[in-house]
Amino acid sequence: MFQVIGERINTSRKKVQAAVADRNAAYIEEDVKKQQAAGADFIDVNAGARIGHEKEDMKWLLDTIGPIATVPLCLDSPDPAILEMAYGMVDKPPMINSISLEKDRFDTMMPFLKGKECKIIALCMDDSGMPASADDIVARTVELVTRLESIGMKQDAVYIDPLVQPISTDSVKGTMVLDAVRQIKNQYPDVHITGGLSNISYGLPERKIINRTFVTLMMDAGMDSAIIDPLDAKIMAVIRTADMLLGNDNFCMSYLKGVRSGMIKS
Amino acid sequence: MFQVIGERINTSRKKVQAAVADRNAAYIEEDVKKQQAAGADFIDVNAGARIGHEKEDMKWLLDTIGPIATVPLCLDSPDPAILEMAYGMVDKPPMINSISLEKDRFDTMMPFLKGKECKIIALCMDDSGMPASADDIVARTVELVTRLESIGMKQDAVYIDPLVQPISTDSVKGTMVLDAVRQIKNQYPDVHITGGLSNISYGLPERKIINRTFVTLMMDAGMDSAIIDPLDAKIMAVIRTADMLLGNDNFCMSYLKGVRSGMIKS
Repeated sequence: MFQVIGERINTSRKKVQAAVADRNAAYIEEDVKKQQAAGADFIDVNAGARIGHEKEDMKWLLDTIGPIATVPLCLDSPDPAILEMAYGMVDKPPMINSISLEKDRFDTMMPFLKGKECKIIALCMDDSGMPASADDIVARTVELVTRLESIGMKQDAVYIDPLVQPISTDSVKGTMVLDAVRQIKNQYPDVHITGGLSNISYGLPERKIINRTFVTLMMDAGMDSAIIDPLDAKIMAVIRTADMLLGNDNFCMSYLKGVRSGMIKS
Repeated sequence: MFQVIGERINTSRKKVQAAVADRNAAYIEEDVKKQQAAGADFIDVNAGARIGHEKEDMKWLLDTIGPIATVPLCLDSPDPAILEMAYGMVDKPPMINSISLEKDRFDTMMPFLKGKECKIIALCMDDSGMPASADDIVARTVELVTRLESIGMKQDAVYIDPLVQPISTDSVKGTMVLDAVRQIKNQYPDVHITGGLSNISYGLPERKIINRTFVTLMMDAGMDSAIIDPLDAKIMAVIRTADMLLGNDNFCMSYLKGVRSGMIKS
């Protein structure tokens, strides 16, 4: 089944930022409970937006979320010191968001990751910028997987983000990433594919139908996880439906449950 | 770009049957104009439901539709005598719906098709019934293409219908046809893939989201045509969006036109 990483607990979102500033635990708890009820498999926690407050905000968020979390958390920070603190506060092995091939990030993240029990989101980004072709995405994936394996990480713990780029800038930006994902899943069947999707529709109107249609295509190519808003019922409905059509829902049980709960509507 | 075969002019639909029985030309004309405005690339014409009246009904329908048709027609009948009459009444080379490997149908359709300037929908059906596997679909396609080529038809004129089957009966029914379509497009890049889609959701609730999600997956596999209701704005919006994401819409022009016209909404 497709895995949903719920993206809502992020201080770049205005209401979350206000709740964190006010130490409004009830607001955060309610949001996390809603994401879990909607089917989130991980809850992303990002406290980066209040400059100078990331460490204390992350600590407060984890203190608040910990007791009610029924799923693992996705610890989202570029700062290994904050991740180290956060890693010590969670009771289920977390997902870490993220490492990339950018030298500074790579060199600080590798020592943190070594020996940790976690999953890792690995971005196909390096110091030259975004990948320029499907081959480029695949080559960066090979380097990420190889280097993460060298510190003992299993392929099944690696979540590659191929970095979706706007179709408005070039009509091949969709097929480029679809081709890359197919090649990656062919070469590394156990490696997961994840990432945000909304970049695909950047610069275009009626973005949500583009994002929903694109996740369907990406699932066909082999994407098995995404960082999305689980309270967007329409994209969740499409994900459950595509999972069924791709053979991942025996007797259509998950689909039928989604219809009965009112989440899946035509 | 994906080609839409508009399915509405079919006497198995109650209102169309009544309009045909009453010789209500205005109703038929309006329906055809709406389908064309919505983006139909072909208008299917099926007069089979009023038993004993098919020939006169088909003649009246073609007399009615001919003057206003801006796209080719898809002549839909199992009877070569009716198709022969219909073929003589159209001014653009039509699509013919359909031939199959069922012996009776095959043996009567081949002499009709020989030397005709038309496109042909070829169903992966034989006297043993529906295909049981992806390999089965591919093998039947090879036989259909080979035999149609033997009477001079070009691969580009052949529209294979792999016969979509209900996912409710077996969770592999989606991947079976997706795999087959990929293999067919790999072996015969010029052959088209078409068909109805709604069988996929037979027996399940909220069928339209299943049909829309499935057409997206089928387009990724290589389906480039379908027999649908072009007035179903939601499936048309998904088709235009998927076409853009698959690299078939330079500068997103068709997508943007769809948004401006109100057809594509999130």
